[in-house]
Amino acid sequence: MGGDHGPGVTVPAALNFLREHPEAGVVLVGAAEVIEAELKVGNSDLSSRLRIQPASEVVEMHDPPAAALKNKKDSSMRVAINLVKRGEAQACVSAGNTGALMAISRFVLKMVPGVERPAIITLLPTLKGHTYMLDMGANVDCSAENLLQFAVMGSILVSSVEQIEKPRVGLLNVGEEEIKGNEVVKRAAELLKSSGLNFVGNVEGDDIFKGTAEVVVCDGFVGNVALKTSEGLAHMLATFLREEYGRNLITRIAGLISLPVINAFKHRVDPRRYNGASLLGLKGIVIKSHGSADAYSFQCALERALEEARSGMLNELGMRMQIMNPQPAGEV
Amino acid sequence: MGGDHGPGVTVPAALNFLREHPEAGVVLVGAAEVIEAELKVGNSDLSSRLRIQPASEVVEMHDPPAAALKNKKDSSMRVAINLVKRGEAQACVSAGNTGALMAISRFVLKMVPGVERPAIITLLPTLKGHTYMLDMGANVDCSAENLLQFAVMGSILVSSVEQIEKPRVGLLNVGEEEIKGNEVVKRAAELLKSSGLNFVGNVEGDDIFKGTAEVVVCDGFVGNVALKTSEGLAHMLATFLREEYGRNLITRIAGLISLPVINAFKHRVDPRRYNGASLLGLKGIVIKSHGSADAYSFQCALERALEEARSGMLNELGMRMQIMNPQPAGEV
Repeated sequence: MGGDHGPGVTVPAALNFLREHPEAGVVLVGAAEVIEAELKVGNSDLSSRLRIQPASEVVEMHDPPAAALKNKKDSSMRVAINLVKRGEAQACVSAGNTGALMAISRFVLKMVPGVERPAIITLLPTLKGHTYMLDMGANVDCSAENLLQFAVMGSILVSSVEQIEKPRVGLLNVGEEEIKGNEVVKRAAELLKSSGLNFVGNVEGDDIFKGTAEVVVCDGFVGNVALKTSEGLAHMLATFLREEYGRNLITRIAGLISLPVINAFKHRVDPRRYNGASLLGLKGIVIKSHGSADAYSFQCALERALEEARSGMLNELGMRMQIMNPQPAGEV
Repeated sequence: MGGDHGPGVTVPAALNFLREHPEAGVVLVGAAEVIEAELKVGNSDLSSRLRIQPASEVVEMHDPPAAALKNKKDSSMRVAINLVKRGEAQACVSAGNTGALMAISRFVLKMVPGVERPAIITLLPTLKGHTYMLDMGANVDCSAENLLQFAVMGSILVSSVEQIEKPRVGLLNVGEEEIKGNEVVKRAAELLKSSGLNFVGNVEGDDIFKGTAEVVVCDGFVGNVALKTSEGLAHMLATFLREEYGRNLITRIAGLISLPVINAFKHRVDPRRYNGASLLGLKGIVIKSHGSADAYSFQCALERALEEARSGMLNELGMRMQIMNPQPAGEV
């Protein structure tokens, strides 16, 4: 029940989600009385597929992850992840503090054996449809082996969720040629070539939105900068376009006439449709929603969770990691 | 006379540039007969401020920098940089192979004493005007000390060219808090705090286009990815907008009515206006134009060269580096 807007957003999102997915159920975790008040505002004929799990604490956006992990054992975040751990929920969706969500998820759910680092994977629109990119900020320093594992995890997620047998995997670099890049990326390319993945080689920043690959792999520093730079550019362009249409009476009339076009355009690139980044590598499905998500946006994150839960992705990942990192005979 | 389009672009750009800047002169370097043919097509009443310097070779876009440096001693690129070295030109502007331009410039012009690595700095539009960002790809692996030097060089360039006494310097990172980032960036922040620069702290990707700082510092890997990702996103958004306006008769009419608005918008973010990245840290001014630049775009790069030559930036940089790295008494 975190995020910037709390149950006022998450409860209506959950109700809409239940309406559109008759096979799904939702557990709302948090302050029971607040949630109940929101449920009364909304339509609660969905009560058979909806239950409230009380939690007395809230992880705040500014809480250091370690403190949230240690001191807030009855936070809505912790209780929700515990539900996943116990198998009472198939996924946890949170709009709260990313660092705390990652720390608590790692502590409670543990990592898939063989995965060294979890990664944050997000969906982005492209000229051809959409692509998945990781890591978006969980790991600011990565080894070539980490990048290889991100590629494997991303590939399994995409093949499971999108039913693409061999998703094209691109390594984000500063040029397409093999000699380009820093040492870590060059070595990662070597590992990827012999990985059995459908590695299409280096891709550049502009390839992300071209849709050159279904999985784009980078370290969390580069991924975070690329994502936030894109958000900043999109915001600037939208502001300029709005300013130009608002300049005078004639431009405002042109804007009115263009409204259907602009709305269709906005829908195609609406970042809310791409909300919901997955914390990959955990023994459970955890989806991070944007903190400022509105109800539509949070519903998209819930839908992402449903897709992943249905896809069997976690089993696939466990099996693949076992093949990549076989245990010594004595330890089996 | 390199670039994708050759003298068909660079000669008209030079003529227009001369027309608009009566105090400037241009030396066109390359195959004399090709340049002369272009001059006849254009208007050449500017001949007193224009001369041709013949060069028999061309560095191709695919030439490895080391080979271009070693084997093409009469390339237009090499001859142009030699002119700067000899003081016969105050700046070199090239639309050719970036790696070769950097290698030849370093070899011929040498580095400003005290500068460890040259950096590529580029201008980007922001909500408030524009900002300068470096390094955009010259150095894929950087130390904290390199990032500090980039900040110093960027700051001197901006204060000289823009007449801003203490430009705000931001360090590109994955969060604003001091604990964020990889080890190199954290250490660079420490160095920047005690540098005497107007260091405003960490900035995030979305701050670039907000105009939070006049100088944004990052390593060349991150800078290149951020720039190309922005180019890719802008291209995708433009494509979608065009598609939506072209969808049917009604949307096409809306597009016609919106044409003045769209043109005003396009002008504000026209990447051609931001063409011309400076190779900073050399004992001479070298400007890299986009390879695919058209005449307007190449003219903008020429104007950047003029601004830098006028600004006295090179002297400033030399003096600042001497203060930062005083030579031991015996070596002076």
